[in-house]
Amino acid sequence: MQGNNLRIDGDRLWASIMETARFGATPKGGLRRLTLSEEDREVRQWLLAAAKEAGLTAHVDDLGDMFLIRPGRDASRPPVAFGSHLDTQPAGGKFDGVLGVLAGLEVMRALNDAGIETDAPLCLVNWTNEEGARFAPAMLASGVYGGELDKDFALSRTDSDGKRFGDALEEIGFSGEEPVGERRLGAFVELHIEQGPILEAERKTIGVVTHAQGMMWYNVTAVGRDSHAGSTPMHLRKDALAGMSEIALAVERIARGHQPGVGTIGEVHVSPNSRNTVPGEVRFTSEFRHPERAALDAMHGELEAAVRQVAGERGLTIDLDRIWIKDPVVFDAKVVSAVESATESLGYPARHITSGAGHDACNVASVAPTAMIFVPCKDGISHNELEDATKDDCVAGANVLLHAVLRLAQA
Amino acid sequence: MQGNNLRIDGDRLWASIMETARFGATPKGGLRRLTLSEEDREVRQWLLAAAKEAGLTAHVDDLGDMFLIRPGRDASRPPVAFGSHLDTQPAGGKFDGVLGVLAGLEVMRALNDAGIETDAPLCLVNWTNEEGARFAPAMLASGVYGGELDKDFALSRTDSDGKRFGDALEEIGFSGEEPVGERRLGAFVELHIEQGPILEAERKTIGVVTHAQGMMWYNVTAVGRDSHAGSTPMHLRKDALAGMSEIALAVERIARGHQPGVGTIGEVHVSPNSRNTVPGEVRFTSEFRHPERAALDAMHGELEAAVRQVAGERGLTIDLDRIWIKDPVVFDAKVVSAVESATESLGYPARHITSGAGHDACNVASVAPTAMIFVPCKDGISHNELEDATKDDCVAGANVLLHAVLRLAQA
Repeated sequence: MQGNNLRIDGDRLWASIMETARFGATPKGGLRRLTLSEEDREVRQWLLAAAKEAGLTAHVDDLGDMFLIRPGRDASRPPVAFGSHLDTQPAGGKFDGVLGVLAGLEVMRALNDAGIETDAPLCLVNWTNEEGARFAPAMLASGVYGGELDKDFALSRTDSDGKRFGDALEEIGFSGEEPVGERRLGAFVELHIEQGPILEAERKTIGVVTHAQGMMWYNVTAVGRDSHAGSTPMHLRKDALAGMSEIALAVERIARGHQPGVGTIGEVHVSPNSRNTVPGEVRFTSEFRHPERAALDAMHGELEAAVRQVAGERGLTIDLDRIWIKDPVVFDAKVVSAVESATESLGYPARHITSGAGHDACNVASVAPTAMIFVPCKDGISHNELEDATKDDCVAGANVLLHAVLRLAQA
Repeated sequence: MQGNNLRIDGDRLWASIMETARFGATPKGGLRRLTLSEEDREVRQWLLAAAKEAGLTAHVDDLGDMFLIRPGRDASRPPVAFGSHLDTQPAGGKFDGVLGVLAGLEVMRALNDAGIETDAPLCLVNWTNEEGARFAPAMLASGVYGGELDKDFALSRTDSDGKRFGDALEEIGFSGEEPVGERRLGAFVELHIEQGPILEAERKTIGVVTHAQGMMWYNVTAVGRDSHAGSTPMHLRKDALAGMSEIALAVERIARGHQPGVGTIGEVHVSPNSRNTVPGEVRFTSEFRHPERAALDAMHGELEAAVRQVAGERGLTIDLDRIWIKDPVVFDAKVVSAVESATESLGYPARHITSGAGHDACNVASVAPTAMIFVPCKDGISHNELEDATKDDCVAGANVLLHAVLRLAQA
C-alpha cells in the first residue's frame, strides 16, 4: 500500500503542542483554556491558519465544531475523520484533547509532504466543550452531534457568570452556518492520552481501544441518629458513617468481583461532622463502570442487596438513587481493526484497552464507525497541571493514527 | 434520721426551671445562654436574689464560680456541696446543668421549710463555663478548681470576637475576691440529665454514677493517591476513603470488644471530594472512651495494629495522632454510697451508670469526695433545643440529691 514507510514528523508535532500551549499557559506548566474563552478563540484561530496553510477547507457548525477537510480522489465518499478537542480543564494539562487534534493536523501535513492523495476525503475535527468545566455537561457538542443531547439544550447552558453557551459562541466568532450533525463522517478515530495507569504499568506504547465503559451513577443518603459519642452505648447507636463505611467496602468488593469493572465512592458529606457526635446522616456518591451492560446490571443488583442488608442490620434508612445510566460503547470492528493493524505494522508494544473516561468518540460512535487510540501518560495523571506524556509516545500515537487513517481512507 | 420523710417541692422546682428559662430563651423552646453573656449575668443575679431570700451567704471566686452557703451546726466542717452550671450551648436545652443548680436551690428551700439544720454547712455551686461553647475548653473553671488547668490560662481564653474571658467576667460583675480553689468542699454531688439513652431504654429513674469514662482522642490522616474513577483499575488504586472505611469499622469492632467502652469517628474530610475521582486523602477524627485506663490502653493498641494493617495492605500512608488522653474518674465510694442509699430509701428504679460525657464533677473529684446523680432525658438528646426531661424524673433526682446531701451532712 502506498505510504507504508511514511512517518509523521515528530519534531513538528511536538513543536505544535508546545506552540499552542501558550494559549492559556499556567505558571505550573499546565493549561487553562476554558471552552469559548479568549484563549479558546486564539487556539481556534491558530488552527484555522494552520489548516489554511495545509490546504484544508474549514467548516464550522452552529455549535462551533470545526471540520477541516482534505479532499480525496472520490468526492462522493464521506470523509475519514479524526480529532479530539482543544479546550481544557481549569487547571489542566497540555495533552488531554490537544494531542488528538494536533496529531491529526500532523497527519494532514505528513500526507502533504509525501504527496499522497487518499481515496476518501479526510477531515480533522475539533469538538466544542469536551471538558464541561465552564458549561456542564461534558462532551456537549459531540453529544448533540451523536443525537444524545438537544441543540437548544446545548445553546442554553450557562457558565457560573450566567453567560449562555450560544452567546459565548457568537462572541468568539465561532458560531458557524452548518447545522450540527449534518456533516456525515465515514469513520472517526480519536487519539488521546489514556488518563489512567494501565499502559505505563504494563510498558505498552499503544492502547487499541475496543470499548468505552458504561456507567451507573448514584446519590446515596444514609440516615441514622445523631447521638453523644460519650454517652451512647454501641448497641444503641444508629451510626450513619459506619453504614457508609460498610457500603464503601461493598462497592469495592462488588467491583473486584466484576473485573475489569470499577466502583468508586468519591464524595462524602457527614452530618453533623463533629468530633464527639455519632454521625446521624451521611450523603455520598457512588458509581460503577464496566464495558458490559449485563455486568453493570449485576453490580447494581449486588449494591441494592448490600444497601438493604446494611440498612436492616443497623436500623438505618438508606436511599439509593440511581441518577444516571450510560450504556457501554462497543467501538466499530472495522475501525478497531484498522488501528490494530496499523499498530502491528509499526511494531509498537500494544494491548486492547477499555476507555474508563468519557470521550467525544463515545458520542460520535452512535452515528459513525468509530474507535480510539490511547498512549500512556505519566503516573496516569490527567485533569491536572502535572499531566505529562513523552514525545516518543505522542509520536507513536500519531503514526498509528496516520496508518489507521490511511487504511480506512484507501480501502 | 431527721427528715426521712422530707421531699422537695416539685412544683416549686419546676417553676424555677421554667422561670429562669426566660434568660436566653430561643423560639424553639431551648436556651442560648453563653458563658459571661448578658443572659448569664441575668440568671446569676436571679440566683443571688433567690439565695438571699433563702438565707444563703454568697461568695464568688476570681473565675466567677458562685458558692452559696447554708450554715451547719459545726462551722469547722467543710461544707457538703452540690450544684452544676447555668451556662448553655448556643442552641442548648433547658435542663443540661440548669437542673443541678436549681435542684440544689430547691434542696436549700426544702430544708428551710422543714426547719432542718444540718451538721455540716451546705454549699450550692454554680461553676463558670462548663460548656466551653464561647470560651474553649469546656469545664474551664472547675478545671482550674480541680488543679488540671492554670488560672492565667483560663483568664486569657478568648471568644470568637477576641474578647478575653477575664475581661468578660469583669464586665458582667462576677469577678470575685476569693482565689479559685481556696474554698475546700467536704463533698460534692452533681445532679445532671444523662445526655444518653440508657436510663430511658431500661426504664430507670435514677442513675447512680460510679465512674466517668476516660478518653483518648485522635486525629487521623490517610493519604493514598487521587486518580480517575473511570480509568484506574481496582488493583492500581490507593483509595484513602476505603482505608478510612476499614478503620471506621475497626474502631466499632474494638469498642464492641471492650464493653462498656465506646468508639466513634465523628468528623470526616475527604479530598478532593469529587464524584469521579478516587479519594487521595481523608482526614478524620477518632475517639475511644472507657471507665478503665487499662482497657483504653488495650483499645489504643488494637487501633494502632488496625491502622498498620490497613496502611500495609492498601499502600496508604496513615498518620494516627493521639491528641488527648483523659484518665477515667472513679467517684468516691462514700458519696456514691450516700446517693445509692438515698435512692433505695426513696424506692426509685435505679442502676449504676458510667458518665460518658465530661462534667464539672469529674474535675472536682480530684480535690473533693465526689459523685453524680443522673436522671433520664428524652431520646437521650442533649446539646439541642429539643432536649427534654419529665417533671417526675427531675423531682426524683432532686429528692435523691436532698437525701444524699442529708446523709453526707449529718454523718
